[in-house]
Amino acid sequence: MMETLFPLPRLVYEPIVRIALGEDLGLAGDVTSALSLPPEARIDAAIIARQAGRIAGIGPAALAAELVDPAIRFNPVVNDGAAVLAGAEIARVSGPARAVLSAERVMLNFIGQLSGTATLTARFVAAIEGTGARILCTRKTGPGMRALQKHAVRAGGGFNHRMNLADAVLIKDNHAAAAGGVVPALRRAKEQLAHLVAIEVEVDSLTQWAEILALPCELWPHAVMLDNFSVADLRAAVAQRTGTPGAQTIALEASGGVRLETVRQIAETGVDYISVGALTHSAPALDIGLDARPLGG
Amino acid sequence: MMETLFPLPRLVYEPIVRIALGEDLGLAGDVTSALSLPPEARIDAAIIARQAGRIAGIGPAALAAELVDPAIRFNPVVNDGAAVLAGAEIARVSGPARAVLSAERVMLNFIGQLSGTATLTARFVAAIEGTGARILCTRKTGPGMRALQKHAVRAGGGFNHRMNLADAVLIKDNHAAAAGGVVPALRRAKEQLAHLVAIEVEVDSLTQWAEILALPCELWPHAVMLDNFSVADLRAAVAQRTGTPGAQTIALEASGGVRLETVRQIAETGVDYISVGALTHSAPALDIGLDARPLGG
Amino acid sequence: MMETLFPLPRLVYEPIVRIALGEDLGLAGDVTSALSLPPEARIDAAIIARQAGRIAGIGPAALAAELVDPAIRFNPVVNDGAAVLAGAEIARVSGPARAVLSAERVMLNFIGQLSGTATLTARFVAAIEGTGARILCTRKTGPGMRALQKHAVRAGGGFNHRMNLADAVLIKDNHAAAAGGVVPALRRAKEQLAHLVAIEVEVDSLTQWAEILALPCELWPHAVMLDNFSVADLRAAVAQRTGTPGAQTIALEASGGVRLETVRQIAETGVDYISVGALTHSAPALDIGLDARPLGG
Amino acid sequence: MMETLFPLPRLVYEPIVRIALGEDLGLAGDVTSALSLPPEARIDAAIIARQAGRIAGIGPAALAAELVDPAIRFNPVVNDGAAVLAGAEIARVSGPARAVLSAERVMLNFIGQLSGTATLTARFVAAIEGTGARILCTRKTGPGMRALQKHAVRAGGGFNHRMNLADAVLIKDNHAAAAGGVVPALRRAKEQLAHLVAIEVEVDSLTQWAEILALPCELWPHAVMLDNFSVADLRAAVAQRTGTPGAQTIALEASGGVRLETVRQIAETGVDYISVGALTHSAPALDIGLDARPLGG
Amino acid sequence: MMETLFPLPRLVYEPIVRIALGEDLGLAGDVTSALSLPPEARIDAAIIARQAGRIAGIGPAALAAELVDPAIRFNPVVNDGAAVLAGAEIARVSGPARAVLSAERVMLNFIGQLSGTATLTARFVAAIEGTGARILCTRKTGPGMRALQKHAVRAGGGFNHRMNLADAVLIKDNHAAAAGGVVPALRRAKEQLAHLVAIEVEVDSLTQWAEILALPCELWPHAVMLDNFSVADLRAAVAQRTGTPGAQTIALEASGGVRLETVRQIAETGVDYISVGALTHSAPALDIGLDARPLGG
Amino acid sequence: MMETLFPLPRLVYEPIVRIALGEDLGLAGDVTSALSLPPEARIDAAIIARQAGRIAGIGPAALAAELVDPAIRFNPVVNDGAAVLAGAEIARVSGPARAVLSAERVMLNFIGQLSGTATLTARFVAAIEGTGARILCTRKTGPGMRALQKHAVRAGGGFNHRMNLADAVLIKDNHAAAAGGVVPALRRAKEQLAHLVAIEVEVDSLTQWAEILALPCELWPHAVMLDNFSVADLRAAVAQRTGTPGAQTIALEASGGVRLETVRQIAETGVDYISVGALTHSAPALDIGLDARPLGG
Repeated sequence: MMETLFPLPRLVYEPIVRIALGEDLGLAGDVTSALSLPPEARIDAAIIARQAGRIAGIGPAALAAELVDPAIRFNPVVNDGAAVLAGAEIARVSGPARAVLSAERVMLNFIGQLSGTATLTARFVAAIEGTGARILCTRKTGPGMRALQKHAVRAGGGFNHRMNLADAVLIKDNHAAAAGGVVPALRRAKEQLAHLVAIEVEVDSLTQWAEILALPCELWPHAVMLDNFSVADLRAAVAQRTGTPGAQTIALEASGGVRLETVRQIAETGVDYISVGALTHSAPALDIGLDARPLGG
Repeated sequence: MMETLFPLPRLVYEPIVRIALGEDLGLAGDVTSALSLPPEARIDAAIIARQAGRIAGIGPAALAAELVDPAIRFNPVVNDGAAVLAGAEIARVSGPARAVLSAERVMLNFIGQLSGTATLTARFVAAIEGTGARILCTRKTGPGMRALQKHAVRAGGGFNHRMNLADAVLIKDNHAAAAGGVVPALRRAKEQLAHLVAIEVEVDSLTQWAEILALPCELWPHAVMLDNFSVADLRAAVAQRTGTPGAQTIALEASGGVRLETVRQIAETGVDYISVGALTHSAPALDIGLDARPLGG
Repeated sequence: MMETLFPLPRLVYEPIVRIALGEDLGLAGDVTSALSLPPEARIDAAIIARQAGRIAGIGPAALAAELVDPAIRFNPVVNDGAAVLAGAEIARVSGPARAVLSAERVMLNFIGQLSGTATLTARFVAAIEGTGARILCTRKTGPGMRALQKHAVRAGGGFNHRMNLADAVLIKDNHAAAAGGVVPALRRAKEQLAHLVAIEVEVDSLTQWAEILALPCELWPHAVMLDNFSVADLRAAVAQRTGTPGAQTIALEASGGVRLETVRQIAETGVDYISVGALTHSAPALDIGLDARPLGG
Repeated sequence: MMETLFPLPRLVYEPIVRIALGEDLGLAGDVTSALSLPPEARIDAAIIARQAGRIAGIGPAALAAELVDPAIRFNPVVNDGAAVLAGAEIARVSGPARAVLSAERVMLNFIGQLSGTATLTARFVAAIEGTGARILCTRKTGPGMRALQKHAVRAGGGFNHRMNLADAVLIKDNHAAAAGGVVPALRRAKEQLAHLVAIEVEVDSLTQWAEILALPCELWPHAVMLDNFSVADLRAAVAQRTGTPGAQTIALEASGGVRLETVRQIAETGVDYISVGALTHSAPALDIGLDARPLGG
Repeated sequence: MMETLFPLPRLVYEPIVRIALGEDLGLAGDVTSALSLPPEARIDAAIIARQAGRIAGIGPAALAAELVDPAIRFNPVVNDGAAVLAGAEIARVSGPARAVLSAERVMLNFIGQLSGTATLTARFVAAIEGTGARILCTRKTGPGMRALQKHAVRAGGGFNHRMNLADAVLIKDNHAAAAGGVVPALRRAKEQLAHLVAIEVEVDSLTQWAEILALPCELWPHAVMLDNFSVADLRAAVAQRTGTPGAQTIALEASGGVRLETVRQIAETGVDYISVGALTHSAPALDIGLDARPLGG
Repeated sequence: MMETLFPLPRLVYEPIVRIALGEDLGLAGDVTSALSLPPEARIDAAIIARQAGRIAGIGPAALAAELVDPAIRFNPVVNDGAAVLAGAEIARVSGPARAVLSAERVMLNFIGQLSGTATLTARFVAAIEGTGARILCTRKTGPGMRALQKHAVRAGGGFNHRMNLADAVLIKDNHAAAAGGVVPALRRAKEQLAHLVAIEVEVDSLTQWAEILALPCELWPHAVMLDNFSVADLRAAVAQRTGTPGAQTIALEASGGVRLETVRQIAETGVDYISVGALTHSAPALDIGLDARPLGG
């Protein structure tokens, strides 16, 4: 009855879809299709996953089709977030052959690259299944693709860290140093920001974490990022939290060099979140193709 | 005296840099830096390669810094196209601490992701060194990043296939079918396009390639894409060309599923170009960081 | 050493400043100045508060001046957030007379309207001084002016509610009804959103508030909006919270029809936040003028 | 048969509607609706005036609804310019519940703020009924809202002063001083501008007004702004015009500090126009709400 | 001391300059210059008029140079509005050779095409010298070039008709028919528009003109367009005006098929304005070139 | 079965159509139509060629109509590329009278100016009929109109030279000088550009042409521009090519001062292409009008 993945409004990604089409159409459009395809030719095609994976990017692909020609019919077979096998149909696309082939590459680029992120996310999520931890992305996104890549992470079962610099506070060592320590920084943030802005603090050692826990609880941040902690130290950090009454409200996030091979160990330490930059900056694209069946005009 | 990499004008990438900054600054800017850094604090930082690789993206990173605050000084230590070792300085960035840290992520995203493409390209280029073949990218680029990713491929020593649908003709099987065969498609293209638009034809078998060679030479395309040919067939295709007087003017491009492990074999068949979609759609980001040394105000 | 108001990056408001200038310059620019002022004439002017108030909008005004002509010198005398008396200088503006007079209205519109919001905010803030409550704005902002008006509220000593629909959850009665009650809605939000997205629930009665408090604390929202509560009920709501162990972490926000005459009573009930739509949708502009002294060329 | 209010083309306000939606949707859209409303849920709602007033802003509100989701049906009950009582329906809005609630705030912001301007204008217009004078707005408009606010003034029965710096000449004291007096400025304007650009001159005293009237009539401006004149002086200014043959073609505009309490006295002096900056810079928003009735999916 | 041509603000034409550069730079910029010019090479060039004419377009050309590279020095030798002989220098352009040659075509396109309009305008102006009539342009402008072409007309000594549909009323036969005649249309316009919007009426015969003159003078338009009148009829129309007391305030504009060969006859009839669509839609470009002297690096 | 003119995608010209409409609608829209036409009035109109010519611009005109009001029905009677006689209907336009008249000028500007280019092109094409040469345009296009004017040239039967600086190399004397001669420039281009980028070299004398021919054939450019050659020299240049084995693959383009009177002579020399800047920078607009028949509401 209720979707598990919350949708992204089309207005959010319309600008990047227009940019992608503009890049590809240049000043003359798809001259190959224009020259070799009769205007009345129609095509009936399927967007196919050539590998198993998790799908994302159907919204921008559909919009690309519509912007190239409203006469293209783009019918999704699956929704963002679906797990598919190699060979699965993702969507059916039919309409004027010139238009469909002009839109092909942009459609596939959105689905292929966003499904790449969703698929890698899903692998991390699967790797920690049952541990209670959650996979987070970062702000290491492709320029112009922040909203869509964050959505692709959700499609893979992951969660989003802050969307941008404006919607949460993350105090790192540089900030703490400049502010005269973590405490003045926390106090200043709590003084100037209202109830709906969350605050996270990065710590680099168990000692720093202990200092946070030793603060009066009204200064506690909402979350603490344990940066580049060993598995043993992560476990110790969780134990410190357990041993501090009320500290359960502070979310613990493990960060730094997380790989598929190591993520389960990390999750089993009891941290709540594990952030993985690779989900958005290094996910290989999912192999997606368009199988077209040209029809007479 | 002459750069080996031709530069990309700033006007070309200014829009995507503004978009990337807009995404990250949101409606309130970098609240963490604003709250915890004194306005007079200055920072002296270096952008560092944490892995060896080939660098690209210095132009958009420098522009991001300037757009955030013209008081930031961004001094490149190396140029796009440079090979660096792990630990190398890529650029020095100094100025108001708030501004530098606000620009940090966008700067690093451009350099990290474009250097990823340059680095992967350079590995393919190195793998075929001495063979006479060249590595090509495709149109499988990140939305909004076409111009910069094509430039990153050049920075890695690769070459660009067509930039978009408008600047060259590439006749694939669907097109040929709709046009009533390759010959009518070629003829139509030659009739409607002037002397500076190149024409390539995709062939899927040695037979199709032989049919092209059998055409009167005024109908020959400038290039032929040998799609998913085995190494043996590639070799045969090159031999067919050698055996056809005058056919040396037709460039041969191998395409389809090329990997680092197989690329040298392919190059040694004698093809002129080898296109690799992964350069732009699946290159892992190069690991790049900002090492900052905060200074008093 | 540290500013009390965190600054807004210029990139955030540059688009609306360009739009405002474009509206006013039309297709021929300021024909009056162009026709009646010698090109070499210079002007030395001051932006003056004709009423006492709280200042905001200096950033966009300075940018408007610069975009009209980089030869204009715009020197702020006070910063955003300053309280000024009638007659106070806000900034000095000097340069080519044509340029200064062309930019005059746009500069004054930004300062006058944003200072109007800052001034009204400051009056609400003053009215509740010493109570421990904070004044919040809403999303009832002028189209295109969200970021600047939110900043103006901060300049007046107020705090910002969520910046937009994406950065926090606010579950109202319609949402709760559709979700099958507040509890399913809360549970779904906690399942799908990560650690840095805050959740607020609107309640319309003490009974509803009691139901929230009766939930297991891991389902508690970060904040509760007490909508259109009487002063007595607000006091009761605060008491309910006090009587519930651990519930102090739930921020209480009074909302609905708050006026300058009633705000102190509301604040004295012990609520943490009081939101006032009028700050952004109904604040009269502060009366601001440009006193110019023309100089010979 | 003919509308009394001339309509504003949608192309004129589409950019600011897109900006307003972009601000509010952020990078993830309306997460509350997405999480708590089933995708198939529908809503049947009415936009209601909670106060009596004059309506404006239906066009941009309808466009906001359509841009969020073309499946929303937005049916105006009244048109811009309509006077409504408290409780009146302004429009009916039905469609997917998620979409309607996502668009709610932007729709209401446009109608509420523009109706505020229309309502205040209508009060000024009512206050001078029967006098023959007309109420004018100024260029003191919200950034990005020039066209819509000018339209809202018309919806309230007011008239527009010049739309921007390019479409009429208004010679103020600074301009006259720089030009070597009003006469050289007028002459220059008449020499350089063609027949469809009107010219107005600001005067600060009866003496200056007498000097204008003493000019040869081919130098007369189309209008004179009597700035900060007392009511007695306004009356004298009108009498001076009456006593000068042919001077009736010069429109007289009273300007400066006009309030609802004083406007009728001013109008009764016989001036043709009275300009009121507050219509656009200080009108409180009309209280507008959305009464929604959720329906099953 | 005072320029005779009023200047156009740079903000007005910046968008079209950016578009022109974007069109020409494509996705890789000027590959010829990038490949064949050493980065350190400098150029010292002059923009030269290869024909005599009247100059316009220096502002956008200078801006194009600056946007391509702020290191280019663009020094105008003459201003917009200057009459030049064949061979005259218009501007000197020096700087990095790559940048200058990349900007060359866009600079020349602006100056060549706008000077074409200015030159043709100047020929019409010269042809009617001494008659008291003025040459007007129309709205038949190049898309995106309205503001610049209107300015070029002024540079040629011409005057501008209305800038767009919003800033003056022009009642043509279709409008009059729909409104139930010219009188209702005039009355409606005067009722709804304030003192600074001018009204013109098109008439197709002396009879219609007589009907206008027979109206009470408070309904008179500011101008009347005599469309496709013979020279004899134009003379008669002027005589009708002369014979009507007070009608001298109605400007008379001759319109329709005006050519250089016929314009003086038309002007000598005593009309005030003559509008010529060809100034903007059919002016041949002035032949402009860049004479470059390459310098060593 | 197949169109002879390849179409231009609407996404390519949508931005310039929006700009053109924005220029013309200003801040209040078409006040004349709004004031004088009843909202229910409908119009049935035809776009008529008042001169014989070749048509282009139907796409942007139709889009302008749709953007002003989707209720306008725009039905082309002919397609781009059609030759029409004076009086021919180009399209029928019907719908709300206000909307049709508001869109009229922008529709006509696109068709009139682009048909001007198509018509002039067709005259050049006709002048060389039967010679085997082709007419080329240049980059001397109206700012913002590159794609549409290039398309109009195709509509006239001409061919396009390179679309912009990025899609082909054209080595002129300045470039050759800076590169140390044509040979180093050619070599560098061939080294850095892949198989689909064509290279042209400008030569100013038969001697230079001979030097090109004397190069090893792997350095030959794809085309040579014979700049400002006399007819005799053009003939000699063709002969040189004929006398050089294999040189037939080098296209020869005559350039410089080509006029309708001289173009046939030039074509008869045997060159392949003749480029004519005037097609885009100096084509007079085709005279196009809207004949409207107002209907009752």
